[in-house]
Amino acid sequence: MSGTVDGAAPAGPAEREAARRRLARPARLRALFAPRSVALVGASESSGWSRLVVASLRAGRLPGRIVPVNPRHASVFGLPAVPGLRALDEPVDLAFCQVATERVDAVMEEAAEAGVRNLVVLASGYGESGAHGHRRERELLDRAIELDLTVLGPNTLGYINPRARAAPFGLPVTSPLRPGGVGVVLQSGALSSAVLDFSSRHGIGLSLLSSMGNETVVTATDVLAHLLEDDRTRAIAMFLETIRDAGGFVDLARRALSAGKPVVVLKVGRSDAGRASALAHTGAVAGDDAVTDAVFRRSGVVRVRSLEELLVTADLLAQGLPLAEPRMGVVSASGGACDIIADRACDEGIEVPELASGTCDRLTELLPPFAVARNPLDVTGFVLARPPSGGRGLADLCLEAMVDDPSVDFVFNSLSLPSREPPDPEPLDRRLAALAETARSAAKPVVHYSTTCTDLAPYAREALDRHGLQVLPGIELGMTAVGHALRWSRARRRLLRHAPGPAEDSPAAVPAPRPPARTGPWSEAAARDLLAAHGAPLVPAALVRTREEAQAAADALGCPVALKVCSAGIAHKSDIGGVALAVTGPREVGAAFDRVHAAGRAHTGDVEGVLVTPMRRGGIELFAGVTVDPVFGPVLAVGLGGVFVEVLDDVSLRALPVDPGEVEEMLGELRGAAILRGVRGGTPADVGAVARAVSALTRAAASLGPSLRALEVNPWWVHGSQVEALDVLVVTASPEDGDPRP
Amino acid sequence: MSGTVDGAAPAGPAEREAARRRLARPARLRALFAPRSVALVGASESSGWSRLVVASLRAGRLPGRIVPVNPRHASVFGLPAVPGLRALDEPVDLAFCQVATERVDAVMEEAAEAGVRNLVVLASGYGESGAHGHRRERELLDRAIELDLTVLGPNTLGYINPRARAAPFGLPVTSPLRPGGVGVVLQSGALSSAVLDFSSRHGIGLSLLSSMGNETVVTATDVLAHLLEDDRTRAIAMFLETIRDAGGFVDLARRALSAGKPVVVLKVGRSDAGRASALAHTGAVAGDDAVTDAVFRRSGVVRVRSLEELLVTADLLAQGLPLAEPRMGVVSASGGACDIIADRACDEGIEVPELASGTCDRLTELLPPFAVARNPLDVTGFVLARPPSGGRGLADLCLEAMVDDPSVDFVFNSLSLPSREPPDPEPLDRRLAALAETARSAAKPVVHYSTTCTDLAPYAREALDRHGLQVLPGIELGMTAVGHALRWSRARRRLLRHAPGPAEDSPAAVPAPRPPARTGPWSEAAARDLLAAHGAPLVPAALVRTREEAQAAADALGCPVALKVCSAGIAHKSDIGGVALAVTGPREVGAAFDRVHAAGRAHTGDVEGVLVTPMRRGGIELFAGVTVDPVFGPVLAVGLGGVFVEVLDDVSLRALPVDPGEVEEMLGELRGAAILRGVRGGTPADVGAVARAVSALTRAAASLGPSLRALEVNPWWVHGSQVEALDVLVVTASPEDGDPRP
Repeated sequence: MSGTVDGAAPAGPAEREAARRRLARPARLRALFAPRSVALVGASESSGWSRLVVASLRAGRLPGRIVPVNPRHASVFGLPAVPGLRALDEPVDLAFCQVATERVDAVMEEAAEAGVRNLVVLASGYGESGAHGHRRERELLDRAIELDLTVLGPNTLGYINPRARAAPFGLPVTSPLRPGGVGVVLQSGALSSAVLDFSSRHGIGLSLLSSMGNETVVTATDVLAHLLEDDRTRAIAMFLETIRDAGGFVDLARRALSAGKPVVVLKVGRSDAGRASALAHTGAVAGDDAVTDAVFRRSGVVRVRSLEELLVTADLLAQGLPLAEPRMGVVSASGGACDIIADRACDEGIEVPELASGTCDRLTELLPPFAVARNPLDVTGFVLARPPSGGRGLADLCLEAMVDDPSVDFVFNSLSLPSREPPDPEPLDRRLAALAETARSAAKPVVHYSTTCTDLAPYAREALDRHGLQVLPGIELGMTAVGHALRWSRARRRLLRHAPGPAEDSPAAVPAPRPPARTGPWSEAAARDLLAAHGAPLVPAALVRTREEAQAAADALGCPVALKVCSAGIAHKSDIGGVALAVTGPREVGAAFDRVHAAGRAHTGDVEGVLVTPMRRGGIELFAGVTVDPVFGPVLAVGLGGVFVEVLDDVSLRALPVDPGEVEEMLGELRGAAILRGVRGGTPADVGAVARAVSALTRAAASLGPSLRALEVNPWWVHGSQVEALDVLVVTASPEDGDPRP
Repeated sequence: MSGTVDGAAPAGPAEREAARRRLARPARLRALFAPRSVALVGASESSGWSRLVVASLRAGRLPGRIVPVNPRHASVFGLPAVPGLRALDEPVDLAFCQVATERVDAVMEEAAEAGVRNLVVLASGYGESGAHGHRRERELLDRAIELDLTVLGPNTLGYINPRARAAPFGLPVTSPLRPGGVGVVLQSGALSSAVLDFSSRHGIGLSLLSSMGNETVVTATDVLAHLLEDDRTRAIAMFLETIRDAGGFVDLARRALSAGKPVVVLKVGRSDAGRASALAHTGAVAGDDAVTDAVFRRSGVVRVRSLEELLVTADLLAQGLPLAEPRMGVVSASGGACDIIADRACDEGIEVPELASGTCDRLTELLPPFAVARNPLDVTGFVLARPPSGGRGLADLCLEAMVDDPSVDFVFNSLSLPSREPPDPEPLDRRLAALAETARSAAKPVVHYSTTCTDLAPYAREALDRHGLQVLPGIELGMTAVGHALRWSRARRRLLRHAPGPAEDSPAAVPAPRPPARTGPWSEAAARDLLAAHGAPLVPAALVRTREEAQAAADALGCPVALKVCSAGIAHKSDIGGVALAVTGPREVGAAFDRVHAAGRAHTGDVEGVLVTPMRRGGIELFAGVTVDPVFGPVLAVGLGGVFVEVLDDVSLRALPVDPGEVEEMLGELRGAAILRGVRGGTPADVGAVARAVSALTRAAASLGPSLRALEVNPWWVHGSQVEALDVLVVTASPEDGDPRP
């Protein structure tokens, strides 16, 4: 046993979390997910769950023994039973615990005594069912730590590992399990049926399917870490309702991207209704969806919106085809399909280039006279009329020509297999062998598709398997998956090229948070000081306390000026009449001073003075602010000012930290980005200077540590390479308010 | 025979078109698509096409005889043959012509002599293959008119009519044909296989599937008109590469909407690449896609982007469920599915309301203690544990409670059928009977779904048919289809409420086009006269010819003023220095006059003078212009000025005619619509006044008839209820340029 396990519950939250992580580290999960022998605690022939789990284990063909644990029967389901785990002659690798919630604790103790180190807990009634359940769940975690038990669940259906032939799983499983490269992690156990069913019908092979349950000990992020180290897993498909350890998840996702192992995620809770549903279902809080999008995009996570898209995309990516360049050749037996594919290619940013003249000549020789040698290529109904030779039909010969074309990076090829096995399977088999040969000898990927999403017949799955071929189910899902693959490759290239150095990305490089001097909204003068300390450029300003000082400041700064009352606790100065704009002349400045000062005094006793700043005209207005997302922590939002932010919601988001290069990327993502390049006769903005200014703002935000609530500059004034923060808002919380981050 | 058929080719294009329409009118198509007997001209046992057509006709179980026509054999495919159509003892209802292109004309003549009035022509080598083919196609049309023959094709695979048991079709057809309510029209014959296959696997029944070919005589629009009159057709699904008779199509679509028969269209050519492909494939020119979108939306056409979506949506709509209100109840056996559904509902504008307390009580009694009675409802894995009674399981009892809830308009209910028939089919059958009963007795629609898109097993299709049930294939496609159904109902309600009166919509009400006085760009003074004549409000202006006149005009109009050189042939005045803005004072006005006048003179000898107008400040700038789409004719584009049009492409489109109410709708569709309501302290625009002004612009455009190329006001200046056109551009073509419209 590990030295940290001393029979006592860990002292504080940090120690508990560290101990939990040790139980869920990849070495432990390798053992959890590949048992040779399994005990079924609470197995009973009268229980539906027992029947299902035994049937699943049998369907999976577990290499070792299945031992029912039942105090009242010597044999259950025809298997010799033991009365309790302590009665085992030697430890099993895994105990599947299907006893009632109240009895789980006793089973954990028994398991530990019997030397069993891995447990799957089916029972519900934990965190998902109120305060009492929450306490029970915390106790389960403490017991697991105390007893050195790796626990999947509670409230889980178990898992399926086709390669290890282990299927301790509470739903029907069809035999034989189909091993493959896709590791599936589900925060909803009941979706397993749909995932297994769709995968089996489309010949998608899995390396693991894990139903996560309440993630008390082992989290989805832990399984991601395990799959990242698992060589058999080539791509990871996750259904997520929430992300419990966002920092760890993002870190793993970036490691996965860098290692070339794609992570595809169906993350729900996009809508408010969805969020409410996720809340009730797992007791978890879902974060703001636009932030999730931004974080996923930055870390190369492929986000999908349906189960079919999740599995088909992960399966394509698991093939490891070098789908990195966007020029696609298309071979189809239908002009209509060509049109649909061309439209979808356009949506996905895929090019359909013209063919080299040599290719056109080759195709013209092959095709009937009424067909046109072009890309996308319609080989026409003639495919039916001309019999194949050497396994290769007309379409297959055209595919060979297309694959050889230098202007094509990959080929999207129609491959329809009949729903019933042909009476003579030989010609089809020869054809598939020839197609596999074409793909092998080609220097570029060939992706086969069927026109619509229909099941592969069992004979067809076997035939494709025999030749290592795969058919994407339907143009719609197929093109979507190819689009994801290309974007994933691009994200990967960008990451490898632009790996953030430790100076930018490591938390150590962020200045040590200093305790904020204030809570609630700061006075603007204090907010300006904070920004200035981190190197952000500000419009010149003078904090004045009398009419005369105001007039002198206006004189020094140059009219017209703006006057703003300066006070902590007044977040919206203009709402209370605390702002005067475009003021010119000593008399007017004096009057404006009196007015805004009095307005502030009417609102609070704590007026620091009045801030006098010169007015800026022309140029471009930008917005940049940092807020705190409940899942991902501090998030930077950047946008153009005016109608773009107020009317169009045109902002780009990133979780911190970001470097100036990323801020430039963010600016480029705005719908109104052309404004920065100087449309309508405006001066182009120096985006490098803007990015440095915004980057300074993020450093100022990071310096506030967990007390940060908001830090916002609205607007920045940008004129060529001149960048100035015109208005600054900082809001912090007192330490008693706690950290809003997970 | 009709009186117009006199053995001579029609005189001109209009007569030819009128004659063609007579051959393709619904009464003729009813006969074309429901033959009792079919002759196969060119049938030969050595031809692949022949084999396929005979097999299809046999699979369809044609009620009457199949007669091969072959001069060399007395029997073909075991059927007694005749040497030619003239040798028939009595006419057949349809001849399927599969002879070579060169022989088609002779067959047409024979057919007419033999009293055959309907022909399907398989041959290619017509309009799709260059100028010679085009001529041949025109000749085929003339012959059809001359001989009073209704011809489908050429270059068609034929059609399938399951209700008439007629399948003269050149691709494999599976028996028995499944009749149903969806009429399918395809401009790509080769897609028929995919359509038939997907439909058959998902239990989608068809009233007709027609492969259109080159549409020389019978067009997709004609078949739409036929299906609109066909009572068995409940919804129409179309795959379109181009729309040949756009006016007729739009008119039929609106009639279909008003009659409650949905039209669902997969229109390709969205992308440039797609357009090129469509061009090569059918020799047709695809229109601008945003215009297509706008026209479809306005006429209630449901636009989809995949074949699966086309068929699933049309099938759902064909059920005629009253899916008109957006509040959805969800019953699912998976919390994860609930989350996915909630997200997709949000995308589709579907509400997932809270349940009435009575429903929650009922559900709480049914559900296990750890489940939560809410919407969307996860009935939990308990469904597996509790056996059904009276055919109704836990999920079905929950469905009944959900259906009874007054806050729910329809229910989306999970129904998973196993891929293999259960050994005892009785319980499933009882369950389906109970579900059908629930749906029947409920006052609201129940839509069943499976979690992912997988085939229905044949036994499952039969079982569902027996009880009149339908299962949408997958949450993704299912929610998409439900979203379409709701939007279609909304469009229908809007149309019925706001049926355009004859004064607005009938072409007769549009002022008779007057021949344009000019071609090319007009001078702005002439353009202003045109707009003024149709009641559009204009900024005051004076056309002056001397400095002194300019100064007097500026004095009268009030400074600052704008001066613009006025000349036909100068479309972009500011590019040549022909504009001076914000000019104040007599000396400056004089100098500006000289400058812009000289700039115009340097460019053209034809300067009418200089236009002096007062400058407008504040307010909102709008853009409105009419251009001519090659498919749909004159199209109005409306947008906000400045960055909205120039940077964001934020415009709303409609084909003319439009009434002021529709212009108001268009303004509401803009992303920047909030600007009109007066954000940022601006004065709200009187959208009624704007709409009337834009409507006047469309009348001016219509008055130009086929010579119109562009008519644009950019900008309109809007300040409250003041609306003025500040700058007007009119471009016309000379009659020799021809009509750009179809």
